[in-house]
Order: sequence, then C-alpha cells, then structure tokens
Amino acid sequence: MHRNILIEQIKQKNSYLCVGLDTDITKIPKHLQQNKNGIVDFNKAIIDATKDYCVSYKINTAFYEVLGSKGWDAIEETVNYIPSTHLKIADAKRGDICNTSTQYAKAFFETFKFDAITVAPYMGEDSIRPFLEYEDKWTIVLGLTSNKGAMDFEMQRLVSGDKSQGNKTLYETVLETVSQWGTKDNLMFVVGATQASELQDIRKIIPENFILVPGVGFQGGSLAETSKYGINKDCGLLVNASRAIIYAGSGENFAHEAKAIAQQYQAEMQEYLINI
Amino acid sequence: MHRNILIEQIKQKNSYLCVGLDTDITKIPKHLQQNKNGIVDFNKAIIDATKDYCVSYKINTAFYEVLGSKGWDAIEETVNYIPSTHLKIADAKRGDICNTSTQYAKAFFETFKFDAITVAPYMGEDSIRPFLEYEDKWTIVLGLTSNKGAMDFEMQRLVSGDKSQGNKTLYETVLETVSQWGTKDNLMFVVGATQASELQDIRKIIPENFILVPGVGFQGGSLAETSKYGINKDCGLLVNASRAIIYAGSGENFAHEAKAIAQQYQAEMQEYLINI
Repeated sequence: MHRNILIEQIKQKNSYLCVGLDTDITKIPKHLQQNKNGIVDFNKAIIDATKDYCVSYKINTAFYEVLGSKGWDAIEETVNYIPSTHLKIADAKRGDICNTSTQYAKAFFETFKFDAITVAPYMGEDSIRPFLEYEDKWTIVLGLTSNKGAMDFEMQRLVSGDKSQGNKTLYETVLETVSQWGTKDNLMFVVGATQASELQDIRKIIPENFILVPGVGFQGGSLAETSKYGINKDCGLLVNASRAIIYAGSGENFAHEAKAIAQQYQAEMQEYLINI
Repeated sequence: MHRNILIEQIKQKNSYLCVGLDTDITKIPKHLQQNKNGIVDFNKAIIDATKDYCVSYKINTAFYEVLGSKGWDAIEETVNYIPSTHLKIADAKRGDICNTSTQYAKAFFETFKFDAITVAPYMGEDSIRPFLEYEDKWTIVLGLTSNKGAMDFEMQRLVSGDKSQGNKTLYETVLETVSQWGTKDNLMFVVGATQASELQDIRKIIPENFILVPGVGFQGGSLAETSKYGINKDCGLLVNASRAIIYAGSGENFAHEAKAIAQQYQAEMQEYLINI
C-alpha cells in the first residue's frame, strides 16, 4: 500500500486506528470456540464490525503459530478477508541474517499478502534490508516497545562518538540509524504508547515516518498523550488496540460490542485530527 | 532435553555438530523438487545420513514459513523424525511482549516438539522469561551474530555505571544481563563463528552456558578458532553448519555427500575434544 493511499484513508475515516487481531482461541466467545473455523469466523465478524472505524489490521502471528499449520491457514484466510483499503500488518517481529530475512520477506509479502511486517533491529542492516526491497510494502522496525523489558536494553545509553550530541539511548540510535536505510514511504517504527512522553523527542529523530503505537487500552497507554506528541502533518500515527476491542464482549453479541469500542476510538481520534 | 543428556551425547559421538536444515525448495536436488513432499524427503535423507556425526538439528523456520501452512506441516514432520537423542532447535529468533512470548513458547515447545528456540533480546526480560519457564527446554538468546550487521548495534558500546569496568558492548551487556535470568541448564547464547576471536572474552562472561555457533562453512568462520576459544570443561559448544552440509551434493547422491562432510566435521571436532 502506497503512503498516499494510507494517508487518504486516514483522512476519509478520520481515524488512525489499527485493530489488533491477537485472536486467542481460549478467549473468543464460547460458541465460536466449538467451531472448526472459529478463529476465522471471529476475525471476519470483528473485521465486518470495525472496518469503518479503522485503517489497518494487525495480525499477531504468535497467537496463530501456537495452532500449528492450521493457524497459518487462519492467517491466510483472515488476510484475504481484510479489505484492500486497510493496511495489513503482520506483527511477527522477524529478523535474521540476510539470506534468511529474504525468506521472511517472501513469506509475508508474497506467500501471505501482507502490506507490512514488524521487524527486530538487533542484528542490524542486512537483517532489515531484504524487507525494504519490496515496493509499496512496509517494514516496521521496533524502536521503543511498550513492555517493562524496554528498560533492559532499549533504554540503555550508548557511548557517543560526538560528545556534543550527548549519550543517546539504544532505541534512539536504532531510530536514527535505521531511518537512513529506508524512506518515509517504506519504513515505520514501533513506539509503545506507555512511552508517550518520549514521542516528542522521537519526532525530532523521525519527523516524517509513520509510527505504529501498541499499548493503548489494556497496557495502559493514553491515546490523548500519544496523539498530542506523535501526530505530524500527515497524521503519521497508527494506534493499535487489540484486547480492548476484540474482547470488548464475550457473548453472542461480541462483534457489536467491538464495534462500539472501535467507534469510541475513532471519535476520539477525530478530535486529534482536527488540524490535519 | 536435560543438559546431562546433551553432554553425554557429545562425549559418545565425539561431536558437537549441529546440522542446519535451512532447506530451500529451490536448492534441493531436482528430482526432489518435483515431489509433493520433497522437502521432508530431503530432510529425512539428510537426517539418516548425518545423525551419527551430529548431536543436534536446527530448523531455520524462515525457509518453511515461505511455503505457508504446508511449510509448517513439513516442520512438524521433520521434527518428529529427528531421533530423541538429538537436540531439536527452532531457529526462529522470536521475541515479543510477555503474553505474546508465552504464545511463542507454547507454539515451539508444545505444539511443535522442539527442545530449544532462538530468541532475540531487544525487548528485554519479559520477552524472554516465558521461554525459560519450561523444564528441560532451552532458550538460545542472540548475543553476537555472524553477519555484517552485528556492527550496527550489537558491537556498539554502552555507557557504564561503573567506570572501572570500562564500556561494554551491547552484546556483552546482553550476555551478562540475560545470563542472570536463567541457568546453564536452560539458557544458551548465539555467538557467530565469524567472531571467533571474541569467544575468549565471551567465555569470561558466560563460562558455563552452551554457545550455539553458526557461521562455520559458507559464512567463513573457522572451526579451529571457534573450538580453541569456545570449548569449556563440558564442551559447551554447538557448532552449526547448514549449506556446507545439506547442499554438499546436488544430485541423486546428495545424502551420501552430506554424510561425508558431516563426518569431516566430526573428525575435526574429535581432535578438539581430546581433553574433555
């Protein structure tokens, strides 16, 4: 998906919501757990109910990988069901040496028809480069994540070659370095919503790239803060909510309840988009 | 697999060879490419031919993920075919926030019967902890990788709290920090063979943990150097070779040629194990 189309969708819907399909077979409504194709049926109902209020869907592959090959069939069916107007993100956090990353890129961009994939930066340039070679596909690199473990390495400070610059954190260095490997048209970054106050400084490093923000909702991140510090002239944000939306209800009426929450997010986002 | 069993296997076979099943459908012998179950047939032939000379098999999931759900069926069939005497490693480089890593751990340790999985450290403790909770399973955390991109972040120096300690690199900090989250019984680290000279210092940080060493063979790492600096009193090494073994031959006789190379590795390893 080209950047212009994504921005157009955001403007049309007044929304930068991404719905996270972290679909856990043990957490979907009881009547669907017994269905052979319960996960896909659940996802389709969630997509039907929320598609007017969001611009993207994010499939967390872990929740499907646990089901073995059937899980990958469910991913395929779900991806193919998402409207082409919506950015399809594989939240897979892959990354390996060059020839292996090439296989991952093929897997997610060709075998499965994702528009975007999340990627871990630890192994450096040749682990990320193969994903960037696809036109109109997006590589979403982990910057500062929403979990407690972000303190362990991401927030550590690096020795700077240039003393006037101060000692940057690892995640700042990742943003600065990786952003030079791609462009605003093929590269996004993950910044957790629980770190919203950092977004102001992060925008100085990556003023133009889209930022994918997980952690709103169950993980406690604030949509208001995230939007205040993260929005740029093209919006430049995708805010993901997973559990808060997909598990809003637990009975037969789950899709209706998911819709209501997605609509709430959209309504709030509309306010923050007023100057775009 | 318990550590004692792994060490026993190494002593019995005089080998610390891990055969990497990075099986690429476009690179296996022509007559197997046309088979419906060609990849599994290839893997089974390689396993039969090499099992007396190695103690472990490593399945690089990327090469299977590119095939969609059929690839996961091939992984399952391959894992189930590997003898229980051999450590079964999923080279998957996963890592996510806690509840997602829990799903990955279930996927690889329960749904698929792997003994070990490679994990990326960027997201910190809660991204790794769920893997460590399984008894007799191994978490293999990326330390210093064999690719050029290792320079980008892994080799960067961190600001030290204790100046007398000097400025450690990110990978050294990862080894030091992560090794406290587990034990020598459930935690290994990846150190690329192209970085063999670093192994001497790495052994000071993690004297007891097993180290998985990729990069011997096609990537140019030296088995002699790796062994000289990496072997500890229990051996403590698993050296992986993938392409050099599995693509040793390209015709009908491929398994025989793979066997010959595996045997060469084993013979060389036997010399380095003389004092164990």
